[in-house]
Amino acid sequence: MSARGDSASDAEDDQRTRYADGSVRLRNPNIELMDQDILYHLALGSGSHDLVAMFGDVKFVCMGGTPKRVEQFAHFIMDEIGHKLPTGTTLLDISQFSYRYSMYKVGPVLSVSHGMGMPSVGILLHEVIKLMYHARVKDPVFFRIGTSGGIGLEGGTVVISEDAVDGVLQPYLDLPVLGKMVRRPAQLDKRLVRELKALADPNDPYDIVTGRTMCTSDFYEGQGRMDGAFCDFSEAQKMDFLNKVHKCGVVNIEMESLSFAALTHHAGIRSAVICVTIVDRLHGDQIMAPKEVLDEWQCRPQALVSRYIKRYLTMKGRLTMAGPGGSVCVKSPRRFKLVQQESENYD
Amino acid sequence: MSARGDSASDAEDDQRTRYADGSVRLRNPNIELMDQDILYHLALGSGSHDLVAMFGDVKFVCMGGTPKRVEQFAHFIMDEIGHKLPTGTTLLDISQFSYRYSMYKVGPVLSVSHGMGMPSVGILLHEVIKLMYHARVKDPVFFRIGTSGGIGLEGGTVVISEDAVDGVLQPYLDLPVLGKMVRRPAQLDKRLVRELKALADPNDPYDIVTGRTMCTSDFYEGQGRMDGAFCDFSEAQKMDFLNKVHKCGVVNIEMESLSFAALTHHAGIRSAVICVTIVDRLHGDQIMAPKEVLDEWQCRPQALVSRYIKRYLTMKGRLTMAGPGGSVCVKSPRRFKLVQQESENYD
Repeated sequence: MSARGDSASDAEDDQRTRYADGSVRLRNPNIELMDQDILYHLALGSGSHDLVAMFGDVKFVCMGGTPKRVEQFAHFIMDEIGHKLPTGTTLLDISQFSYRYSMYKVGPVLSVSHGMGMPSVGILLHEVIKLMYHARVKDPVFFRIGTSGGIGLEGGTVVISEDAVDGVLQPYLDLPVLGKMVRRPAQLDKRLVRELKALADPNDPYDIVTGRTMCTSDFYEGQGRMDGAFCDFSEAQKMDFLNKVHKCGVVNIEMESLSFAALTHHAGIRSAVICVTIVDRLHGDQIMAPKEVLDEWQCRPQALVSRYIKRYLTMKGRLTMAGPGGSVCVKSPRRFKLVQQESENYD
Repeated sequence: MSARGDSASDAEDDQRTRYADGSVRLRNPNIELMDQDILYHLALGSGSHDLVAMFGDVKFVCMGGTPKRVEQFAHFIMDEIGHKLPTGTTLLDISQFSYRYSMYKVGPVLSVSHGMGMPSVGILLHEVIKLMYHARVKDPVFFRIGTSGGIGLEGGTVVISEDAVDGVLQPYLDLPVLGKMVRRPAQLDKRLVRELKALADPNDPYDIVTGRTMCTSDFYEGQGRMDGAFCDFSEAQKMDFLNKVHKCGVVNIEMESLSFAALTHHAGIRSAVICVTIVDRLHGDQIMAPKEVLDEWQCRPQALVSRYIKRYLTMKGRLTMAGPGGSVCVKSPRRFKLVQQESENYD
């Protein structure tokens, strides 16, 4: 977990981000001294809610851009892991009264929307990391499941990010704090990348690749698009740029991975970014695919994360295979059933 | 409209951003050469929609952070200007199928959500500015109606931003474009600030002030809050920072004004940022005010913008005074009635 990368500092960082039992520790001594902590943008609070009872069994936090996508993922993962709701109940948007983010809980899985751009995902991460602390969650794993522009990849390709760089290819999140720049490495968990890659199925009718992800603070000029309200460069200059970053290993471009990687890494939380490409930027700027195609593409990274979650729960003896079944999103070859064990962590 | 500030370059910029009839011209020669322009994050397109017919009569674009707030503003302004919907119809979220932003149209007023942070408002601005171009809107005025942390101001104070600065007090938006930094001045329209200030009513039970707004890319560490997931500074260091920026004229802090000011200024669009303060950062970090109080506070900048819109429409003979009436948000002393004149611009 260390920028130095040596085992002594790794151990130091581990102590800063974990208690002895593996539960999340905050790199902020102030929170435990507060009477209550209001998670304003989640419409939750440590004084108003029993966060241990509500969220203590969370293991996976899956984030996506839009409320719609994370609601759909919640239903999908519920079907995939065979999670049953009590009769007469339905999923509820836990953060509905924040009007900022949407959050659904399906057993050990939280599905949360992060909006667009690094500031939006950054606010969410601060509050979800604090939520993990308040709920005494042990070793959670965070996923960002998103969309991106591909470079040299056919639309519908799934990209697992090896690392994240900014618009000038720097692998850091630079943030002004009290008027001075603070630099945090945007590192993703390498083992998690390998584990996810290993879950690619040869029968998948699309590619699952790994590579570098560029994260920008603008969708138009910042990603070299010529179709924004402003454009001061030529097609040749744009192609030079895209080819140059491609040669540096960049295979896709989106707007959240740098902050997501930097903040989860700083918190000592294993995390991965899995995005589907919705356009090949070497062939165009506009997103022309029909809605139905885009919808199907967006299921692909969800399916990969679902495989990871099911594999984990199966290994922990928390999932039993059931008869064949389908799902609202991607057909799964086998259906699982979550063995209910309330009020207990999955580690 | 020029960074140089001389009248020759002002005239140059005017020609770049306006056609002879005052309609919005894009600083991007590519758009008019495209067969169609898909405004992806608005779920609109120049090929799929008759944007002139739908939006040609827009004069004011009012943006706020959340879908809820802009829906509420749409109903409020409808009541304020006496806009009548045809019997059996209701307001519709025009961009509902983008799942990104919400957009409502009430006669000459668009009410649009921009999410949180500069990248999110930036994407929206690119697409709304293009929408103004496609719809041939003349001299639109953009407002951001938001919330902010105040510095030395009681909660519930309305701040009209004189200018916007970033987290290190620079009045620019720095954006990497094709790997190189592009710097754009974050200027707001000074006349609009004066006009809005003049609409403060001595009977308003709260202050309406003008001042400098700091715009950050993070809500916690980036705004000197000690209650995020991470904190490496002391209370004394935080207070030094807040007092220092206060001495430089900063009266509130939020997360969108810099991009909003820079992009509207670059597009030659008159714009203003009006935020209510929801906490005095000199006295704390957490937002503790009850929901009902926060809801009432958020109506205050809406009421000011409504006064501006009503004054404009009255001057143009587009509004007639009607009998006394109320509104869903803030009681207005007089009620107006919009004189319907479809398919015609308000200038």
